Amino acid sequence: MRIDRARLAASMDALGRIGETPRGGLTRLALSDEDRLGRDLLVRWMKEAGLAVSVDQMGNIFGIRAGMETLAPVLMGSHADSVPTGGKYDGQLGVLCALEVIRSLDDRGARTRHPVGMVIFTNEEGARFQPAMIGSGVMAGKIPLEDAYNTRDRDGVRLGDELERIGYLGPEPCIPRPLRAYLELHIEQGPLLEEEGLPVGVVEGIVAIAWSRLTLAGVQDHAGPTPMRIRHDALVAAAEVVRGIREIPRRVGGDLVSTVGRLDVSPNIPNAIPGRVSLSIDLRGPDEADLTRALGMVDRIVKDAARREGVTSTLEHYWRVPRTVFDPGVVSAVERAARALRCGHRRILSGAGHDAQYMAAICPTGMIFVPSRAGRSHCEEEFTGLDDIEHGANTLLLAAAELAGTLG
Amino acid sequence: MRIDRARLAASMDALGRIGETPRGGLTRLALSDEDRLGRDLLVRWMKEAGLAVSVDQMGNIFGIRAGMETLAPVLMGSHADSVPTGGKYDGQLGVLCALEVIRSLDDRGARTRHPVGMVIFTNEEGARFQPAMIGSGVMAGKIPLEDAYNTRDRDGVRLGDELERIGYLGPEPCIPRPLRAYLELHIEQGPLLEEEGLPVGVVEGIVAIAWSRLTLAGVQDHAGPTPMRIRHDALVAAAEVVRGIREIPRRVGGDLVSTVGRLDVSPNIPNAIPGRVSLSIDLRGPDEADLTRALGMVDRIVKDAARREGVTSTLEHYWRVPRTVFDPGVVSAVERAARALRCGHRRILSGAGHDAQYMAAICPTGMIFVPSRAGRSHCEEEFTGLDDIEHGANTLLLAAAELAGTLG
Repeated sequence: MRIDRARLAASMDALGRIGETPRGGLTRLALSDEDRLGRDLLVRWMKEAGLAVSVDQMGNIFGIRAGMETLAPVLMGSHADSVPTGGKYDGQLGVLCALEVIRSLDDRGARTRHPVGMVIFTNEEGARFQPAMIGSGVMAGKIPLEDAYNTRDRDGVRLGDELERIGYLGPEPCIPRPLRAYLELHIEQGPLLEEEGLPVGVVEGIVAIAWSRLTLAGVQDHAGPTPMRIRHDALVAAAEVVRGIREIPRRVGGDLVSTVGRLDVSPNIPNAIPGRVSLSIDLRGPDEADLTRALGMVDRIVKDAARREGVTSTLEHYWRVPRTVFDPGVVSAVERAARALRCGHRRILSGAGHDAQYMAAICPTGMIFVPSRAGRSHCEEEFTGLDDIEHGANTLLLAAAELAGTLG
Repeated sequence: MRIDRARLAASMDALGRIGETPRGGLTRLALSDEDRLGRDLLVRWMKEAGLAVSVDQMGNIFGIRAGMETLAPVLMGSHADSVPTGGKYDGQLGVLCALEVIRSLDDRGARTRHPVGMVIFTNEEGARFQPAMIGSGVMAGKIPLEDAYNTRDRDGVRLGDELERIGYLGPEPCIPRPLRAYLELHIEQGPLLEEEGLPVGVVEGIVAIAWSRLTLAGVQDHAGPTPMRIRHDALVAAAEVVRGIREIPRRVGGDLVSTVGRLDVSPNIPNAIPGRVSLSIDLRGPDEADLTRALGMVDRIVKDAARREGVTSTLEHYWRVPRTVFDPGVVSAVERAARALRCGHRRILSGAGHDAQYMAAICPTGMIFVPSRAGRSHCEEEFTGLDDIEHGANTLLLAAAELAGTLG
């Protein structure tokens, strides 16, 4: 039993045109008009494949293919939103491979003991609404539904209102449901599989993640007549913080990574000394103790930079997800599938958060990685070759079939 | 002959309500709806004062009070636009003091040999449209009219279109006209007058100014699975540039100042490594050779930071205004006026650019400074006490009367 490579490629092409950027990337922010169009197309395909489609209160979309028995389903999925000027693989590849697996089961008239289904989670990226992975987070009971509804984008637009506006505020409760397993195929977004020439990563878990936000308040003043001796420049302090954050992984060692991805200056004009800067701090690593040590370093770096420039600082460590360990049974099923296909594979840890992270709290979960060219993602150059995708999708097919119990 | 302090205060109150911020500052960006409302009110007042009002092709507004002879007018003025969340004194105080001088001449039925007039220049701040001082720049022949029309704000809106939209695209050619003198009252925007307890600054000239813009292009990538060893983070390089720019005045010595006021990150989300950062560099100083040396340091700082992080840099030194020396005759007239009023004064150099800078190229020019509390401006806390304003306005009145030749 194998997937249909040409059909999968055609679906990728069609969905990839919704929100396509001039340079061949993708901008399909969560709950935007493009997200709605992408969802509409996927729902149409899911119905054409005979799935029972439902939408929950968080706009997560489910499509279930009945099994021979009334058992908990094997669910496959990912997300369909993107970062701004992102790529066409992050998220939607996992959704389309799940759909392709279901279509392939239909091609063969395959019957499974457990139902097999797919899911499209809302706002995985956290690019428009924070926190990231909010749809699966609510489903896993980790984020209160009301908090999710009340989160706002940078224009002040409420997530709940946008869900309603685009027609995806569904009636189904967004709560844990009995699941045989959750399987997510995703691009690696790192360089390891490509460096080692392997098409499939058998994902064992996800690194721990901590997000912080910092606001520095100095004294906004005119850039001309204000002598250097009386300045309190929020951007100068922020620059010191950015440099300090960059040095943390070297000081901590191991595979910890640190990033300041967002930085906003106020009033942000050439001839005013910046009075206020806010910025994000993203820390990730396989080791919880290292991450805690790194957060302590952030505190110190911010305090020192603020004192030196005479500005005030407000630092919040507002989000932390512990290291996720996937279900050994599901990880083994993925590994057996890759072995059966005789395709090169290795066990690997995810450096990025995924919906699978929250799903692991409520059901046996595993992931399949396919390589990212030059390790690049969250950019228009994001790319995975079709040969690798085919290996990954077939691994997903065989693993799902095994977990669902194929009757032939 | 003295100005009417209460009338001046009332005008400041009324104009200050247009674009007022909740915290008592001012947001009245050039050619915005608020700018239009402010202009409309000023034009009404100018007409009520019997002035012959005209608008030129750059939206500069002129109001002339006839003299006894057909001679070149003495022109007073400033601008009425503000920076975002700026103050109520920068610009509009000079315009209102000019109007108050004319009203005071009328109170006394004073006749002058030269006409006495006032002007409101368009887009002095450069906050919305770059470069700054564009209205006086075109009038002085330093900026081509078409270039000014084609400059766009950050939303891509054309200056020429906005002039037309708000009804201030006038018919008069924007070219040098014969002027006896140009006099501008303005807040100091620095701390010197307050530190020395003096209400009036007799401005001898303006420091030299250089503006540069820098774009750093790294590799946008995912903040999680991208190992530190393969990163090319545009924000890390930018942070190094910000730190380097801050150190330039210490290295050069003298009264040079340096500022990075604007910095924009792309894509600017917590979980993407910044692929692109653009920023502004503002250098000012009384000494041309120091400024040239500082620009050389900028080149080196940018080159080093870009090389270290493996990003590319595009640096443009796109605007430079040499040190402005005001007309000795006009400066002396201002000094005589302050002395006649027996108010404390000193000679001073402006650290900020002003329309007077361009006007100095086409007519005898001088400026009057009044103190800024704590040296602060371009912020909501910008403040000058009414006693100081009264001294400044009376200095403007006496200097203008002398230059225009009062007949009684």
